[in-house]
Amino acid sequence: MADTLFWLTPIGSAFALFFAWLFFSRMMKESEGTERMAQIASYVRKGAMAYLKQQYKVVTLVFAALVILLAFMAFVLKVQNPWVPIAFLTGGFFSGLAGFFGMKTATYASARTAWAARKSLNSGLKIAFRSGAVMGLTVVGLVLLDIAVWFLVLRAFYPLTDDGHNLIIITTTMITFGMGASTQALFARVGGGIYTKAADVGADLVGKVEAGIPEDDPRNPATVADNVGDNVGDVAGMGADLYESYAGSILATMALGAAAFLGQGTLQLNAVVAPMAIAAVGTLLSILGIHLVRTREDATQKTLLNALGRGINASSLLIVVLSYFIVRALSLPTGIWLSLVFGLAAGLVIGKSTEYFTSHSYAPTRRIADNANTGPATVLIAGLGVGMVSTAVPVLAVILGIVFAFLSAAHFDVSNVAQGLYGIGIAAVGMLSTLGITLATDAYGPIADNAGGNAQMSGLEAEVRKRTDALDALGNTTAATGKGFAIGSAALTALALLATYVEELKVGLLRIGRTVLTFVDGTTMDTATASFPDYMRFYGITLMNPIVLVGIFLGAMMAFAFSGLAMNAVGKAAARMVDEVRRQFREIAGILEGKAEPDYARCVAISTRGAQRAMVLPSLLAIFTPIVTGLVLGVAGVMGLLIGATSTGFVLAIFMANAGGAWDNAKKYIEEGAHGGKGSPAHMAAVIGDTVGDPFKDTAGPSLNILIKLMSMVAIVMAGLTVAFSLM
Amino acid sequence: MADTLFWLTPIGSAFALFFAWLFFSRMMKESEGTERMAQIASYVRKGAMAYLKQQYKVVTLVFAALVILLAFMAFVLKVQNPWVPIAFLTGGFFSGLAGFFGMKTATYASARTAWAARKSLNSGLKIAFRSGAVMGLTVVGLVLLDIAVWFLVLRAFYPLTDDGHNLIIITTTMITFGMGASTQALFARVGGGIYTKAADVGADLVGKVEAGIPEDDPRNPATVADNVGDNVGDVAGMGADLYESYAGSILATMALGAAAFLGQGTLQLNAVVAPMAIAAVGTLLSILGIHLVRTREDATQKTLLNALGRGINASSLLIVVLSYFIVRALSLPTGIWLSLVFGLAAGLVIGKSTEYFTSHSYAPTRRIADNANTGPATVLIAGLGVGMVSTAVPVLAVILGIVFAFLSAAHFDVSNVAQGLYGIGIAAVGMLSTLGITLATDAYGPIADNAGGNAQMSGLEAEVRKRTDALDALGNTTAATGKGFAIGSAALTALALLATYVEELKVGLLRIGRTVLTFVDGTTMDTATASFPDYMRFYGITLMNPIVLVGIFLGAMMAFAFSGLAMNAVGKAAARMVDEVRRQFREIAGILEGKAEPDYARCVAISTRGAQRAMVLPSLLAIFTPIVTGLVLGVAGVMGLLIGATSTGFVLAIFMANAGGAWDNAKKYIEEGAHGGKGSPAHMAAVIGDTVGDPFKDTAGPSLNILIKLMSMVAIVMAGLTVAFSLM
Repeated sequence: MADTLFWLTPIGSAFALFFAWLFFSRMMKESEGTERMAQIASYVRKGAMAYLKQQYKVVTLVFAALVILLAFMAFVLKVQNPWVPIAFLTGGFFSGLAGFFGMKTATYASARTAWAARKSLNSGLKIAFRSGAVMGLTVVGLVLLDIAVWFLVLRAFYPLTDDGHNLIIITTTMITFGMGASTQALFARVGGGIYTKAADVGADLVGKVEAGIPEDDPRNPATVADNVGDNVGDVAGMGADLYESYAGSILATMALGAAAFLGQGTLQLNAVVAPMAIAAVGTLLSILGIHLVRTREDATQKTLLNALGRGINASSLLIVVLSYFIVRALSLPTGIWLSLVFGLAAGLVIGKSTEYFTSHSYAPTRRIADNANTGPATVLIAGLGVGMVSTAVPVLAVILGIVFAFLSAAHFDVSNVAQGLYGIGIAAVGMLSTLGITLATDAYGPIADNAGGNAQMSGLEAEVRKRTDALDALGNTTAATGKGFAIGSAALTALALLATYVEELKVGLLRIGRTVLTFVDGTTMDTATASFPDYMRFYGITLMNPIVLVGIFLGAMMAFAFSGLAMNAVGKAAARMVDEVRRQFREIAGILEGKAEPDYARCVAISTRGAQRAMVLPSLLAIFTPIVTGLVLGVAGVMGLLIGATSTGFVLAIFMANAGGAWDNAKKYIEEGAHGGKGSPAHMAAVIGDTVGDPFKDTAGPSLNILIKLMSMVAIVMAGLTVAFSLM
Repeated sequence: MADTLFWLTPIGSAFALFFAWLFFSRMMKESEGTERMAQIASYVRKGAMAYLKQQYKVVTLVFAALVILLAFMAFVLKVQNPWVPIAFLTGGFFSGLAGFFGMKTATYASARTAWAARKSLNSGLKIAFRSGAVMGLTVVGLVLLDIAVWFLVLRAFYPLTDDGHNLIIITTTMITFGMGASTQALFARVGGGIYTKAADVGADLVGKVEAGIPEDDPRNPATVADNVGDNVGDVAGMGADLYESYAGSILATMALGAAAFLGQGTLQLNAVVAPMAIAAVGTLLSILGIHLVRTREDATQKTLLNALGRGINASSLLIVVLSYFIVRALSLPTGIWLSLVFGLAAGLVIGKSTEYFTSHSYAPTRRIADNANTGPATVLIAGLGVGMVSTAVPVLAVILGIVFAFLSAAHFDVSNVAQGLYGIGIAAVGMLSTLGITLATDAYGPIADNAGGNAQMSGLEAEVRKRTDALDALGNTTAATGKGFAIGSAALTALALLATYVEELKVGLLRIGRTVLTFVDGTTMDTATASFPDYMRFYGITLMNPIVLVGIFLGAMMAFAFSGLAMNAVGKAAARMVDEVRRQFREIAGILEGKAEPDYARCVAISTRGAQRAMVLPSLLAIFTPIVTGLVLGVAGVMGLLIGATSTGFVLAIFMANAGGAWDNAKKYIEEGAHGGKGSPAHMAAVIGDTVGDPFKDTAGPSLNILIKLMSMVAIVMAGLTVAFSLM
C-alpha cells in the first residue's frame, strides 16, 4: 500500500507543475497595456532580476564553502554519508528556483493585472490570483519532485531491510536537502527583506512624509527600487521561505516516522510515506480549490472575498476527510489523523487571532490609530504593546496543538515519545498540506500591489489604483489564514526536527562504531534500539544540566541578536536611501514638478548594496552557531540552543509580525478617513509607526521562522561531527 | 564557626540601619533653600506619599487574599507549613518599607541638594550621594534583619538534626518571605513604572515637542506629576526591587546550600551561613566604601567621578579578598570562592557592555543619534536594532559565569549538580554583596534629577541646573556597574531558584507522606535522599517531554505578554496625560506666558489612576500562571515555564533596558550640540525615540527581572500544592 500511495507524490508534483505552466502561459497571453506600462514593468523586472543575480552570486559562494565542508565530513572524517553534499545542493537549487519562477511570474503579471483591472475588479483578480497560483504550485511541485526523486534514488542505494535501519538513514540523509533549502531561504528572506524595506522606508519617509506626494509617485526616485523590492522580498523571498517550510515539515515527519515505527515491519514504511501522500493529495486539492475561485463578471468586493474563501475552505475541508482515508489505508492509528486535525485547528486559531490583532475592523488596531492623535511616540508604544500582548493567543493555540497532537498520536501515553512527536510532525504537514492554494492567496497580494504601482507610475485612471488596492486588501484578509498555518507549522516543525536530531545522533554514533551506550551508572544499552528518553538520559538532557540551561540562554539570545542585525541593516540602508532621495529632490531641478526624470538606478543600487553586504553576517551566524555549540558544549548544549531559539524566536516573530501588521493597518484606517485622514498630523504619526513596523514584519519577523528551522537542520546534519569531536 | 559567622548578619544589619539613620538625620539638618523650593518639594512629597498610600491599599488587598490562600494550604490542605503565611507577610512589609524610607529620604533631599549645588558641585554630590546611601543601607539592613530574625525563629522551632532535614525545611520556608518581597516589588515596579512614564511621556510630548518649553518648566501642568513619578518609580520602585533581588539571591543560595551538603555534617550549616556572612561583610565594606567617597571642595566632575569609582572599587576588591577567608573559615571548597569571583567578573562585563551600548561616548548610541537626521522612524529602527544586538555580550557573560561558577564549585564534575548550582547562587550573592554602595550610586541619580526639577521650577540660576545635570550624568556612569550586577544576579538567582524548586518538591512529597519514589521502570528510591538528577528522571524533565517543551513556550510568551500589558498601560495613561496637558494649554488663559498656574493636581490624578488600574492584571498573571500551570501540567510544565520565562525574560529585559538607555543618551548627545542641538529636527526625532524608550527601560524592562524571580518563588511556595493535586 505504501508503495502505491508513494506514487501520489510524483503525480502531485506533475499536476502542480503542469498547472503552474498553464496559468503562466495563459497570463502571458494577456496584454501588458500601454507602452509606458510595459516600460515600467520592464524596469522593475530588470531591477529585480539584476538583484537576484547578485544575490545568487553571494549565495553560490556560501554554498560552495558549505559543500566543501560537507564533503570533507563525508569523505575525510567519515561522519556523514556521501549523498549529503549533493542533497544539500539540490535543496538550495530548487528553493532558489521556486523563488525565481515566482518572481518572474509576478514581474510579468503586474502590468497585465493593472490593465485588466481597468476593465473590472473581477478581471484584475483573475490574473493576479492565477499568477499567485503559479508561485504556489511551483513551490509545492518542486518540493514534491525533489522529495520523490531523492526517496527513489536513496532507496536504490540503501535497500529496505527488515531491521528498518536503512529507512532511518534514507530519511535523515534527506534532511540535508532541507538544510540546503533553508540556507537559500534565509538568504532570500534576509537579503530580500533588507532590500525591500530599505527602499520602502526611504520612499515613504521622504516622499510621503516630507514631500507629501502619494505612494508610487513617479517623481519619487525610490519608487522603482520600492517596486523591485516588493518582488525580491515579498515574492522571491516568500517563495524560497515556503519551499523551506513545506519541505522541512514533510522531511522531519518522514524521519520521525522511520524512528517511531522502527521494528514494526511495514508500518515503518507506511509512516514514512504518510506525510508525502498527505502533501500530494493536498496539492491535488489545492489545484481543485484554485479552480473554484470563479466569479461572475460583475462581482463585488464581497463576492470576490467569498470566492477566495470558498477555494481555501474546500481544499482544507477535503484534506481533513481524505487524510483520514490515507491514514487508515496505511494502517496507521486513527489518533495520527486526529493530530492532523488538531494541527489545522491550531493554524485556524492563529489565523483568526492574527486577523483580530492586525485588522482595523477590531479594537487593538483602532486603539493604535487613536494613539496617532497624540503623535508618533504614543503610536509606537501602543503598537509595541499590542504586538507583545498578541503573542498570547498563537502561543496558547500552538501549545494546545502540541499537547493534543502528541497525546492523540501517542494513544494518550506520555511516555510514547516517538509516536507522539510523529503526531506533532503530522500536524505541521496538515497545516501546510494545502499550501498550493494558501500561498496563491498570499503571493497575489504583492502582485496586486505592484499592479497599483504600475498604474500610478504610468498615470492610469485613479479608479484602477482603487481597484488594485481593493484586490490587495482582499488578499490581506485571506492571507491571514495561510500565515497562521505558516507560523504554526514553523513551531511544530522545529519541535519535530528536535526529535530528528536525536535520531541522527544515533546514526552518527553507529557510523563511528559506537554500538553500545554506557551510562554513568555503568549500565549499557544498544545504540541502535535505545529510545528517545534513553538518549536524553545518556546525554543528561535535563533542566538541571547547566549546559542545557546555558544552551537555552544562548538560543534565546540568538533570536534577538539575529533580528537586531537585520533591523540595523534595514536602518542603515534606509538612512542612505533617505539621504539620496533628499539629495535628488534638492539637486535635480524640476523633479517635484514632474519636469525632470529622477535617477531611479541610484536608489536601486543603494538597496542592492545594503542587502548584499548585510545579509551575510546574520546568515553565517545561523549556520555556524549550532556547529560551534556542538563542538564546544556537545549534544546537551545543542539541544538547549535549539529549544531556546525555537521558543524565543517563535514568540519574537509573532510579536514583530503582529506589531508591524497592526501599524500598517492603523495607517490604512486613518488613510480611509479616520482621525483627519490623509495628510493629517495623525496620518504622519501613523506613517512613522508603519515605517518602523516594516522591517519588523517583512525582514526580521519572517526570517526568524527560517532561522529556527535552519539551526535545527544544521544541527542534524552536523550531529555526526558533534558526537565524534565534541569537547563535552 | 558557622554559628559565630552567622552573627555577622545582625551586626551588618545594625551597622547598615545605624548609618542610614545617621545620614538621614544629617541630611535633614541642611537647608531646603527658599520658600518656593520648600513648597515645591512639599508638593512633590505629598503627591508621592499620596500615591504610595493608594498603591499600598491595592497591594494590601492582594496580600490579604494571598495570605488566606497560603493559610488554607498550610492549615486545611496541610501542604505547607504554618510559618509560610507570616513569612510571606514580613517579606512584603519590609520590601515596602525599604521603598517607603528611600522615597521619604529622596523627597526631603531634592530641594536640599539643589540648594547645596548653588554652593558647589561637591556640596551637591555630598547630599545627594549620602541620601542615596540611606536607601542602599536601608535595603540591605532590612534584608539582613529579616533573614537573621527568621533564621533564629525557625531554628528554635525546627532544631538542627543530624540528618539535616530540618535545615532544608528552614531554608525553603524562608523562600516564602522572598515571595512576599517579590510580590511587593512587582507592584511597586509596575505601578511606579506606569506612573512615572505616563507623566514623563505626557510632559515631554506636549511640553518639549509641541510647546517647545524646557524640561521641568513650571508652566507645564505635568511637571509635578513627572517629579512625583521619579520618586515613586525610580526610588520607591527601585528600593523594593533591590530588596527583592538581594533577599532572593541570599535565600536561594541558603536553600541550595542545605541541599548540596545534606548529610555532610556541619558542612551543611556552614554552606547555609556562607551567603549570609558574605552579604553581611559586603554590607560593612559598603559602609566603608561610602565613607571613601570624599572630595576636596573645589572638585571637578572628573575628580568626583574618581571618588565614586574609588568607593565602589574598594568595596568590590575587598569583598573578593574577605570572602576567600569566609569560605575557608567555613571549611567550604576554594572552588566556591572562585564561583563568587566568576560572578563578579560576569557582572563587571555586563556593566561595561551596558556602558558601551548606551553611552554616547561610543559608536552604537552615536549611530542612533546620526539616524535622527532622517527622522523619528530611523531613530526607532536603529534603537531597536542596537538593543537587540546588545543582548549578545551580557548573555555570553552570564553563560560563561554560569559555566565557570558551576564547574569550579562542582570540582569540574558536571554530574555534581547540587554543589555546582550552589556555586551559581554564590556567584549571584557575590554580585549583590556590595549592594549597599552600588545602590547608593544608583539611587542618587533620581535625587539629583529631582533637585534639577526643583531648581528649574523655583527659578534658581541656570548654573544650578547645570550642576545637578552633571551630578545626574555622573550617577549614570557609575550606576552602570550596579545595574550590571543587578541584571546578572537576576539570571543567576532565577537558576538557583529553579534548583530550589526541586528541593521543595522533596519537602512537599515528604509532607504528604510519599517517602518513596517509584520510577516508570519499577525501581524505587528514597524520597529524602534522591538527588537532583534523580528527580529529573522521576518527573521526566527532559527536552523530549512535550509538557516541558510546552512549558518553555508558555514561559517565553509570558515574558512578552507581561511586557505588553505594561507598555499598553503606559501608552493609555500617557495618551490621557497628553490630552489633559493640551487641554490646559488651550483652556487656561495665560498659562504659557507664566501668568496662570496650571492644574498640577489633575495630572497627578491621571497618573495615579492609570497606574492603580493597570498594575493589577500583569501582577496577578505573574502569580497565578505558575499555580495554574502546576495544577494542570504538573512539575514538568512548571519547570519548563520557569526556564522559558527566565531565558526569554532575561534577554528581553536587556533588550528593553539597553534600547531605552541608548535612545535616552542619543537625545542627550544631540542636546549637547550634535546634529543641530536642542530644537533641531534631529532633536525632535530623538525625543520621540527617548519617549518610546521610557516605558522600555523604566517600566517593562526592570519589572521583567522581578517577574522571573517571582514566578520561581511562587512555584516554590506552591510546590506542595502541585505534588498533591496536579492533574499530570
